[in-house]
Amino acid sequence: MTSPTLADAVRALDGFYPPQTAAGWDRVGLVTGDLQQTVSRIHFAVDPTLWVITEARELGADLLVTHHPLLLRGVHSVATTTAKGAAITTLVVADVALYCAHTNADVADPGVNDALATACGLSATDPLDEEDGQPIGRVGDLPSPTTLGAFCRALADALPAAPAGLRVSGDPEASVRRVAVQGGAGDDRFDAVRRSGADVYVTADLRHHPALEAREEARGGAPYLIDAGHWATESLWLTGAADRLRTALVAQGYDVQTTVSRLRTDPWDFVVPTGHGEPTDRPKEHDAL
Amino acid sequence: MTSPTLADAVRALDGFYPPQTAAGWDRVGLVTGDLQQTVSRIHFAVDPTLWVITEARELGADLLVTHHPLLLRGVHSVATTTAKGAAITTLVVADVALYCAHTNADVADPGVNDALATACGLSATDPLDEEDGQPIGRVGDLPSPTTLGAFCRALADALPAAPAGLRVSGDPEASVRRVAVQGGAGDDRFDAVRRSGADVYVTADLRHHPALEAREEARGGAPYLIDAGHWATESLWLTGAADRLRTALVAQGYDVQTTVSRLRTDPWDFVVPTGHGEPTDRPKEHDAL
Amino acid sequence: MTSPTLADAVRALDGFYPPQTAAGWDRVGLVTGDLQQTVSRIHFAVDPTLWVITEARELGADLLVTHHPLLLRGVHSVATTTAKGAAITTLVVADVALYCAHTNADVADPGVNDALATACGLSATDPLDEEDGQPIGRVGDLPSPTTLGAFCRALADALPAAPAGLRVSGDPEASVRRVAVQGGAGDDRFDAVRRSGADVYVTADLRHHPALEAREEARGGAPYLIDAGHWATESLWLTGAADRLRTALVAQGYDVQTTVSRLRTDPWDFVVPTGHGEPTDRPKEHDAL
Amino acid sequence: MTSPTLADAVRALDGFYPPQTAAGWDRVGLVTGDLQQTVSRIHFAVDPTLWVITEARELGADLLVTHHPLLLRGVHSVATTTAKGAAITTLVVADVALYCAHTNADVADPGVNDALATACGLSATDPLDEEDGQPIGRVGDLPSPTTLGAFCRALADALPAAPAGLRVSGDPEASVRRVAVQGGAGDDRFDAVRRSGADVYVTADLRHHPALEAREEARGGAPYLIDAGHWATESLWLTGAADRLRTALVAQGYDVQTTVSRLRTDPWDFVVPTGHGEPTDRPKEHDAL
Amino acid sequence: MTSPTLADAVRALDGFYPPQTAAGWDRVGLVTGDLQQTVSRIHFAVDPTLWVITEARELGADLLVTHHPLLLRGVHSVATTTAKGAAITTLVVADVALYCAHTNADVADPGVNDALATACGLSATDPLDEEDGQPIGRVGDLPSPTTLGAFCRALADALPAAPAGLRVSGDPEASVRRVAVQGGAGDDRFDAVRRSGADVYVTADLRHHPALEAREEARGGAPYLIDAGHWATESLWLTGAADRLRTALVAQGYDVQTTVSRLRTDPWDFVVPTGHGEPTDRPKEHDAL
Amino acid sequence: MTSPTLADAVRALDGFYPPQTAAGWDRVGLVTGDLQQTVSRIHFAVDPTLWVITEARELGADLLVTHHPLLLRGVHSVATTTAKGAAITTLVVADVALYCAHTNADVADPGVNDALATACGLSATDPLDEEDGQPIGRVGDLPSPTTLGAFCRALADALPAAPAGLRVSGDPEASVRRVAVQGGAGDDRFDAVRRSGADVYVTADLRHHPALEAREEARGGAPYLIDAGHWATESLWLTGAADRLRTALVAQGYDVQTTVSRLRTDPWDFVVPTGHGEPTDRPKEHDAL
Repeated sequence: MTSPTLADAVRALDGFYPPQTAAGWDRVGLVTGDLQQTVSRIHFAVDPTLWVITEARELGADLLVTHHPLLLRGVHSVATTTAKGAAITTLVVADVALYCAHTNADVADPGVNDALATACGLSATDPLDEEDGQPIGRVGDLPSPTTLGAFCRALADALPAAPAGLRVSGDPEASVRRVAVQGGAGDDRFDAVRRSGADVYVTADLRHHPALEAREEARGGAPYLIDAGHWATESLWLTGAADRLRTALVAQGYDVQTTVSRLRTDPWDFVVPTGHGEPTDRPKEHDAL
Repeated sequence: MTSPTLADAVRALDGFYPPQTAAGWDRVGLVTGDLQQTVSRIHFAVDPTLWVITEARELGADLLVTHHPLLLRGVHSVATTTAKGAAITTLVVADVALYCAHTNADVADPGVNDALATACGLSATDPLDEEDGQPIGRVGDLPSPTTLGAFCRALADALPAAPAGLRVSGDPEASVRRVAVQGGAGDDRFDAVRRSGADVYVTADLRHHPALEAREEARGGAPYLIDAGHWATESLWLTGAADRLRTALVAQGYDVQTTVSRLRTDPWDFVVPTGHGEPTDRPKEHDAL
Repeated sequence: MTSPTLADAVRALDGFYPPQTAAGWDRVGLVTGDLQQTVSRIHFAVDPTLWVITEARELGADLLVTHHPLLLRGVHSVATTTAKGAAITTLVVADVALYCAHTNADVADPGVNDALATACGLSATDPLDEEDGQPIGRVGDLPSPTTLGAFCRALADALPAAPAGLRVSGDPEASVRRVAVQGGAGDDRFDAVRRSGADVYVTADLRHHPALEAREEARGGAPYLIDAGHWATESLWLTGAADRLRTALVAQGYDVQTTVSRLRTDPWDFVVPTGHGEPTDRPKEHDAL
Repeated sequence: MTSPTLADAVRALDGFYPPQTAAGWDRVGLVTGDLQQTVSRIHFAVDPTLWVITEARELGADLLVTHHPLLLRGVHSVATTTAKGAAITTLVVADVALYCAHTNADVADPGVNDALATACGLSATDPLDEEDGQPIGRVGDLPSPTTLGAFCRALADALPAAPAGLRVSGDPEASVRRVAVQGGAGDDRFDAVRRSGADVYVTADLRHHPALEAREEARGGAPYLIDAGHWATESLWLTGAADRLRTALVAQGYDVQTTVSRLRTDPWDFVVPTGHGEPTDRPKEHDAL
Repeated sequence: MTSPTLADAVRALDGFYPPQTAAGWDRVGLVTGDLQQTVSRIHFAVDPTLWVITEARELGADLLVTHHPLLLRGVHSVATTTAKGAAITTLVVADVALYCAHTNADVADPGVNDALATACGLSATDPLDEEDGQPIGRVGDLPSPTTLGAFCRALADALPAAPAGLRVSGDPEASVRRVAVQGGAGDDRFDAVRRSGADVYVTADLRHHPALEAREEARGGAPYLIDAGHWATESLWLTGAADRLRTALVAQGYDVQTTVSRLRTDPWDFVVPTGHGEPTDRPKEHDAL
Repeated sequence: MTSPTLADAVRALDGFYPPQTAAGWDRVGLVTGDLQQTVSRIHFAVDPTLWVITEARELGADLLVTHHPLLLRGVHSVATTTAKGAAITTLVVADVALYCAHTNADVADPGVNDALATACGLSATDPLDEEDGQPIGRVGDLPSPTTLGAFCRALADALPAAPAGLRVSGDPEASVRRVAVQGGAGDDRFDAVRRSGADVYVTADLRHHPALEAREEARGGAPYLIDAGHWATESLWLTGAADRLRTALVAQGYDVQTTVSRLRTDPWDFVVPTGHGEPTDRPKEHDAL
């Protein structure tokens, strides 16, 4: 059996994640490489960091597929004086092609949000919201109600280890059944979450003001919030995507190997607990309001 | 001795935190109240949440001073159907005036960033950046070098307890001496941090992409990042501000009491560790890059 | 019989004047109040001025319905230092809910422009223009032709007294039959008026330049212009709207009273004639042009 | 003595009203004509209407000087199908040059606002506001206090007759001494009027919402408002400007005649009083607020 | 037989070149003239320059029809101090009406691009691109393949003489069959040209950067470029348009004469060859790339 | 002697052409390369085309300095599917650094416009215009008056050979002495040219409409126009820039060689004369206008 060309691999990926389904501001598809080059090993990762590129090169990969674009903002230089330029230069010199599937992988079925929904224990889901005709996030019901605390422990077991863990807003004893998910940054979708009737929203990159305002609107009740980490929530997709691509290329008669990065590209390396002695207060019940 | 009027209190606060030093997009100053009303008790908090307003009312406060504006975006209704409207209605019905000192308190001296710098162990500082003629953040040198890990532990002891603790990016054994701080959300100041020569940047609300790109530019070395929590980094200012206002009003012959909220308005209630068994990799050294 | 809640009244008003039919820049609906409060008396007025609010409070009204929004531009403070803040504070302290039906009442049928068309002697009308799928203004034919002067006298009799009266541009002896109307400010609709074939345009807030340019395009002939006053043209709607709401709520089995403000909120208190001795010229006929 | 050329007249006018002092959005200076043509008669008017142009042509004028620009918005056609095109065509065919001095005549000293201030009985004045380094409007003190009613009667005597007269908001018995003026449309200067400490503001083109909001901020007191008519307030300047130009050209040894239009270009031809029987209420005192 | 009025001629032209088919930024139709004036002679030209207007006046034309608008940008003055003002003044004084058919003549069938396609030897064509529902340019196949050099010589014979001639990018021996054309400026349509599969693109006003980038994308091969001159490519349309208008008016029973300008309004008067001795290099083949 | 590093070469170039003097929209400086790499041969060209890059690689150049930026618009991919991506990939793989000096070389002294002014026979010059504090173009007087035709012939001898030659608008017998120059595209500077009093303007990329409008404003007289070719006018600078850089590096004790490209990157390969038989008219004199 022969190896596919980069053109073969790109054609298969474009089929799974059609570029025209990406958001208007997004930049997806091929970033480096020549369509005629042969591809015998394909590596998958969330972020095209310098360490991930080194990992790909050392593994002998010809193609690196990442979720996040390397050049979301256009560049006017690839000199090695910037990290982006060093990444491009390393890829080009090492003959490693880079392909990015970002918001087109978010909206795909199966895609990034399906992998996250599965990790939450959801089997059937609906879109959480819609934008430019594409489904954004997912919402669905657990097989049976549980507590927020138990739901979090189960989700934590399904996610890769990261120092920051899950940050949760809500009463661990509260009952939850309807779950909304949005991999990556989700603090611009609270209106859709409220409309969906979700009891809990699993997403990441939640900042103080949007999160606190969402909690105020909820008057302390549902929907509760879980910040499960940008990298962690999106890394769940990698293995399935790699399998799907290899299967498709093998079905076309090609010989190709796929690997998934073992590097954590979440920026946080460790956590330190704060405060000593008496904790600050947080009311459990808001019935006076 | 008599109580001051709201006009007296506003005059003193405007003197400490001149409204014209606030950012152009910010909305500071008096939000509810009548300048003629008497003020015998003043309550301080980071956020004007419904629970904080209830606390102020139950304490008999006539004036609530918060760091965050309630109406940063203009409102067209104060009906109780929204959380903002419920907050305004509660304040007006309970005769609790609300005054906000936000970016004008960030740039003041002493202000929010000075309190954070002190908690970091800095005695003398310079502005980290400048915008519209106002100093943004602070940067300064520790009395002697320490490790990133030890610095984090000391800072953690100086902050109020919050479940999410400090999130840190960097090697705990790395040496740090020069420290940049910016209370609240700081992921738009990485250029200034690099220019400042800081070894570590203490701020909050750091999202995946800006933080990871900053770490890539640093090639794994300094400046390291600490996300110490939006509420935690800004709450440090409350006690000093309350003391300063009471002292100023007493010096004018008035009788007034001040209190500081014991409520934590950080949205996170608890944290759950992720992953089980073998952890993901994170290289400690980037010398190959 | 029991009194309705504010929610009942809002539901009825939203049915008459659906919020989604308002212009994109408009701000309609509930401005103050709690949906659970009981509503036994509803007061109607064109403008929510401080005197109108006082009138509502003194009448014991629980709900004030006005045509003009109080907070068309968003506010960041309701302190009593501004007139808007004083109005909000007075409403909230007195438990008077405020509801505004503005451009959604203009386009409704029956709505503000229908009341004005009726006052002009029109029975059947068509939309004058259309914007975002909504009808703007009305145009129709009088039962028989009349002179501009006679038309003005009849309209003047149908309007509430206001010092500035009707200002008219055109020859009082000119014949008119087709009449266009637009309550409130109408000097941005001259193109539609010309397209409609109207002989006279009844509106208000006509400024020098747009009005003079419209007269120049008309070369001294039709369409003639009548500035009948912003408040006067819109006040015609109040009685019908109040009757309609009371009828609807009574039909649901509720007990409620409605009143219409007797205050004139037109800003003009008196008029003083100008010039002495010989008047300036105004040619009656433009046939030389 | 010989007649000046159009170039001579333009040079003198540009000296009185430097084009660079006009607002950035304004369009002033020569609109039709050839700099070499001889100018023996110059006609002055507020607006270049078709009747004013006919008047100029019939008087044998070679140059028409108006306050309002004919082509404030650029035109792409001067065909006679539009009023603007007919005006241009008539001017060009009749060899009547047109020159406009608009906001540059407003800010000039002596200029449009000085003529209005004089009609109000002010001798010395200061600028009311400033924009792009130019003085906007005027403010000054009457020799002694008077009532609003008496002030209006005196101003009415100084203005040319126009059907709409003066529209006044305020109590005729109220005392006034400090007077702000802005010829033409002035409802965007209420902040400056309040800052100036004026008791009354004389301007024109006041629409319902800005005027009513200004009255609400005034809580029924000063500053009172007078809408004295756009044309009337600006026509006061014509005679002085004509005299000044003729004097300057004669001083250069030229022979030239000047005339001032007797046509009223205010769009209103007649007024009809509204209402019958019982008038609406307007509270005289706001002390309850 | 009688002469038509300007209204008759405009009606016929608007039928051939409906104004609503012009681009949104374009300004077409009547620029000077009175619809009642009689039209016995109509002159056609590409540009309404001062010399063309003089030519029209000297020929006794009552109407000048040009492709390019005189007032594409709105004017605020028609004084003779600017060339545009002098042109308008000359037209108005000489009673020469001006009518422009620009992008509406480009998209018409038959229109400007059809005349150019015919000159290229194309019989049947398709639109090259589409914008706002209108066809932009044309593309079609020659009856048989030829060389780029031979194609250029044939096209040069079909164009009116102009000093700059045809500028060509490509190998004269290259084979061409599919031809794209866009009269006037065409360097914003290279994407459409590539999509069309054209071997050669005939247009004008090609600047260095867009042309060179198009050549780089072509890697030295097809599509080749021909800059045939803005005036030359558009002048081809004049004779057909004049014939069509005269025929239509005669068919309505009118007596009218048409003429086509013999003036070249291309700005270039002569060309001077550059360099002496050894020429610079230009590789003929790019096979190494 | 040793070779300089890329950092040494960049430092020298940044000194000659400070990046902060480039226009705000421009993108100058290092595009590919690593500051630590050794530079023994530096190649200069106007455009970084694929052939120029091949030429540089075949010459063994380590650094290519071009006037035009390769990535003026930011790119999101450097895959070889686009010409820009192929250029970047070729440069990176061949270890050829690319440095661009564009508008900062235009405004430098000596810079691109000085080289063009020298070719025109000017010894002393002033800036033609100014933008953001930088001099744009040059203007100066010839030692003695000459004819437009003779001036063109002398300039043509000083320029490198290009098929399109010089295109000239004006009478070859007209007298010229004052000369304005702007290398590259110059049709946005006609106002400055008129203000400068220039008799002739030497620039390139002149399109039909701006050029014709400039000729109309000139009423057929001065300033005359010469389009001397974008590439040709800018290529004059290369030799001097190469000499200056080599001299500076040698003076620092380094050993380095410089070469100038012999490739013509003007897109035009050949010219074909248009028309046959009788030429179109072009009036030589405009005295009737």
